[in-house]
Amino acid sequence: MVPPAVARLSRVWFPSGGIAVSGAEDAHSKLIRAGFLRQSNAGMFHMLPLGRRVQDKVEGLVASHMEELLGASRVSLSTISAEALWKNSGRLEKVASELFRFSDRRDVPYLLAPTHEEEITSLVARTVKSYKELPLRLYQITRKYRDELRPRHGLLRGREFIMKDLYTFDNSTQSALETYENVRAAYSKIFAALKLPVVPVKASSGDMGGDLSHEYHLPTPLGEDCVVSCADCGYSVNEEIASSPISDFVPDGISYNTSYEIWRGITKDRTKLVNVWYPKWTRTLSSQKLREHTAQDVNLSVVKSIEPDLDAGVEDALPLWAAAVAAETRTAVKVVNVIDSRLGTSFLDALTGHSPDISSWPSELNPPISSLPVSSHHEDARGVPLNLLRIRTGDKCPQCVIGSLKVDKAMELGHTFFLGTRYSEPLGAMTTIPPASHPSPMQMGCYGIGISRVIGAAAEHLADKTGLNWPIAMAPYSCVVVPGNDCDDGDAEQVYNQISSISGPGRGLVDVILDDRKRSLPWKLTDADLIGFPVLVLLGREWRTTKRVEVQCRALGLKQFVEIADLPTLVGQLHAQL
Amino acid sequence: MVPPAVARLSRVWFPSGGIAVSGAEDAHSKLIRAGFLRQSNAGMFHMLPLGRRVQDKVEGLVASHMEELLGASRVSLSTISAEALWKNSGRLEKVASELFRFSDRRDVPYLLAPTHEEEITSLVARTVKSYKELPLRLYQITRKYRDELRPRHGLLRGREFIMKDLYTFDNSTQSALETYENVRAAYSKIFAALKLPVVPVKASSGDMGGDLSHEYHLPTPLGEDCVVSCADCGYSVNEEIASSPISDFVPDGISYNTSYEIWRGITKDRTKLVNVWYPKWTRTLSSQKLREHTAQDVNLSVVKSIEPDLDAGVEDALPLWAAAVAAETRTAVKVVNVIDSRLGTSFLDALTGHSPDISSWPSELNPPISSLPVSSHHEDARGVPLNLLRIRTGDKCPQCVIGSLKVDKAMELGHTFFLGTRYSEPLGAMTTIPPASHPSPMQMGCYGIGISRVIGAAAEHLADKTGLNWPIAMAPYSCVVVPGNDCDDGDAEQVYNQISSISGPGRGLVDVILDDRKRSLPWKLTDADLIGFPVLVLLGREWRTTKRVEVQCRALGLKQFVEIADLPTLVGQLHAQL
Repeated sequence: MVPPAVARLSRVWFPSGGIAVSGAEDAHSKLIRAGFLRQSNAGMFHMLPLGRRVQDKVEGLVASHMEELLGASRVSLSTISAEALWKNSGRLEKVASELFRFSDRRDVPYLLAPTHEEEITSLVARTVKSYKELPLRLYQITRKYRDELRPRHGLLRGREFIMKDLYTFDNSTQSALETYENVRAAYSKIFAALKLPVVPVKASSGDMGGDLSHEYHLPTPLGEDCVVSCADCGYSVNEEIASSPISDFVPDGISYNTSYEIWRGITKDRTKLVNVWYPKWTRTLSSQKLREHTAQDVNLSVVKSIEPDLDAGVEDALPLWAAAVAAETRTAVKVVNVIDSRLGTSFLDALTGHSPDISSWPSELNPPISSLPVSSHHEDARGVPLNLLRIRTGDKCPQCVIGSLKVDKAMELGHTFFLGTRYSEPLGAMTTIPPASHPSPMQMGCYGIGISRVIGAAAEHLADKTGLNWPIAMAPYSCVVVPGNDCDDGDAEQVYNQISSISGPGRGLVDVILDDRKRSLPWKLTDADLIGFPVLVLLGREWRTTKRVEVQCRALGLKQFVEIADLPTLVGQLHAQL
Repeated sequence: MVPPAVARLSRVWFPSGGIAVSGAEDAHSKLIRAGFLRQSNAGMFHMLPLGRRVQDKVEGLVASHMEELLGASRVSLSTISAEALWKNSGRLEKVASELFRFSDRRDVPYLLAPTHEEEITSLVARTVKSYKELPLRLYQITRKYRDELRPRHGLLRGREFIMKDLYTFDNSTQSALETYENVRAAYSKIFAALKLPVVPVKASSGDMGGDLSHEYHLPTPLGEDCVVSCADCGYSVNEEIASSPISDFVPDGISYNTSYEIWRGITKDRTKLVNVWYPKWTRTLSSQKLREHTAQDVNLSVVKSIEPDLDAGVEDALPLWAAAVAAETRTAVKVVNVIDSRLGTSFLDALTGHSPDISSWPSELNPPISSLPVSSHHEDARGVPLNLLRIRTGDKCPQCVIGSLKVDKAMELGHTFFLGTRYSEPLGAMTTIPPASHPSPMQMGCYGIGISRVIGAAAEHLADKTGLNWPIAMAPYSCVVVPGNDCDDGDAEQVYNQISSISGPGRGLVDVILDDRKRSLPWKLTDADLIGFPVLVLLGREWRTTKRVEVQCRALGLKQFVEIADLPTLVGQLHAQL
């Protein structure tokens, strides 16, 4: 058998170094400087060879879990979806602001799909003939699109990104919920294999629909979600659906109906001004500490439970409101007051009675509020008093009522949704299950993993001052062989072949490359640190004298000289461990 | 070692059968009926698991040739490209009619890239620092977009398609031309490995720019190109650039200046009406046969050599022209006459003198032609008399002047372009090569292979009445094991494992699957024919009596009973051969 060709860094294009980064360098800057990717437009990236290898490895690992653990079949749906289909599902307007939309030369309206529930449900609806074909599990790993208001942090929040999306179709709710649990188990194994400390939390289903969902979060200060957890009882939820007993906030001694704050929002359809009234000060029962609140503390998820069309992306609503009022075509404008229940009924009375004590209406705004329809809410649809303030670390756990809560910034890397019949019903994905004589909609689930985001998050989570630091499962190469000044190419190839021939643990993960670039040894070692190879094997001074190589592993703080005969065992162990 | 899990058709989703196809079934219908893909919108497709596997294999084969033969590095560029970049290259307006264009929420104009010269040149321009980094060879395999006027024949002419695109950057023309020849050699190997009888032909560079290009054509009646070739001397060119000695067409006895025909076109910018005047009859020198000509015989490539902006996609130009003349914003409209030189100078005189003998201007058209600027051409820029009629089989070869030409319909599967500095110059991809002190633009090439089209063309080329018929290199599975009614799953697994353990020739191509679906044997055999597995191994009646299996190979017309011990050798030989 011909031995496989030696992989050489001189044959791979990855422009490293030379990109000046100002200020504290984040992982995204390191990804650029080390030549993994380049930004092409805001929130869009060209993957260079190193970045593509990382992406390939993450995709391969996720795909093998989908197929081996879940028996899922891989498909590849068109990136382009017809708007008509999204109208049928009733979702077009809800997500319109984040869609890239366009028409073809015949004026047929299309969009770049951010997700594929509509397409896959429509495909299954017109393809599956019998309930016997279910359960069905279909997944793909493709580019998705979302016209984010503020793309940032590189791969963590892009407008074009790679996502793995799995869709499941079952004959019954029970079977669909079993599928749901199987996928959750597979997700835990995937994140464990990626060596990322991801925590599953209960979450809101948002625009997706359905009524059971979990998010998979990596704690990080760059995250845009907050995970609320209790170490005592294991409560772990997205802040969006966290509840905190309002009694924790009962005031003592401060009159809220005079010390209030207001935050103003507007709905996505620009017809409603949303006034959010919240207490300026609260005091916790546990610590009796006085807290001051700003607009940052308003829990928009609660506001959305009253006014679902709120556009959370708008920072200054008044100009948009003024434009809406001024527009002649806009006949129905409305004001919605959302009031934290702690402000009390006297505040509500004063507000609805247009008391001059409450300067609820800037004088420059026309028409005066008294001429507009107003609705005011201080409790939710079930009559529960509204708590508009976000949970803080130290608040009491609503589940065990003993522990105190911890609030962490986190980044969502995956999401599981039990969808029920949310899409199968409007799009007609039905089966007739004996003894029934009429068709019933399939029970669906959808399950995403943000491949691009996993790459960005792993870079962020594991990088240190000297560079990136990949786990073996997603490193562009698992091991680099660096020849020192005093050894020739044949020596380096000998070491390369020793490592390539590893058997036993770690074997399947070995992906070695030889750094044969015409650069100095210190330059290569610095570059290797920046790129973040998990294992580095150096043919240094000891090579010439005692034929021993130096094995380095930054993640473990390991530097060890070994005889070449012992190299496969050590490198194999490191591969199995990292 | 744990043996690999047995691949089973029951675990793969490929809805086969059940799709009624009216009339003669083409390969695209077979691809649908066998469950390889489904159309989602006009010219757009969802790839189902079988189709995706085919795509994976073609991509893998092309990628390995790019890396091993050409040392190319794989990248993955964003699908979205900024219009501004295409303005910089000067190509935006030229290709505008086939672009999907849209704006983001900040009104920045983008397009879905049909090809990536602009992006890759811009990326290299801002990344490469020294001439020592060249030559550089970068390729990707990604989705591309083209808003075709008439998407048709499934994967053969889609609006969303997979393309392999390679871009090369060299320091000198000589080195770039060496690269060009290396890629041509690699392309020949790729098409040979795919078992497709593809012929390279000289071609026009079209909108791409540059001055040396070849196309890789598969002869097929579904093709939209015509390849002109001479068996005597090896002349092989796209009809677009074929030249035929005009003397072949010298008339005898017919007066062309009265028996002419006209075809009218319009330019893409809708400012020029193009009148194409050609003889109604000609007679060949060789056969003396009289030929009648229609608009189908007009060689639009020659017309384009006079008026490059001609919109070949417009079938009826007059309504567009009327609209152009009527538009108040349009100040400059113009008429261009393109005249076959055989009509003679007397015709030209009559035409330019607005002779009433020539009804060149429909009376309903305003303004009258005498009030418009008109230019008339009966020879090209080099003074060569214009031959506007397409070459036909039997015309004399212009290269050897002995052989006669053959004209074949063909489908372009690949294209190689030497670009020179067409993109590097406007987009600033420069290096300074000592001893020069000033930077000079890089010498580029670009090289495409239509992956989707290769799949569609292979299906078309190899399908027969009973179904598809894949070469081993691109089959979704290379071999299917079909258990008969009298054998159990253990028997089938035994045969499966025998085939999987093949060593020697063909080993790397073995990709076997077990048809364990709960269907009758005749149903499975019919389905296997439709799907087009290259090799089928049947555990039929002979299995029960003599433990022999039947090996079938439709491509070779082979049906042979073998002992299980001899199975690996035979199946291995077939894999190496198909």
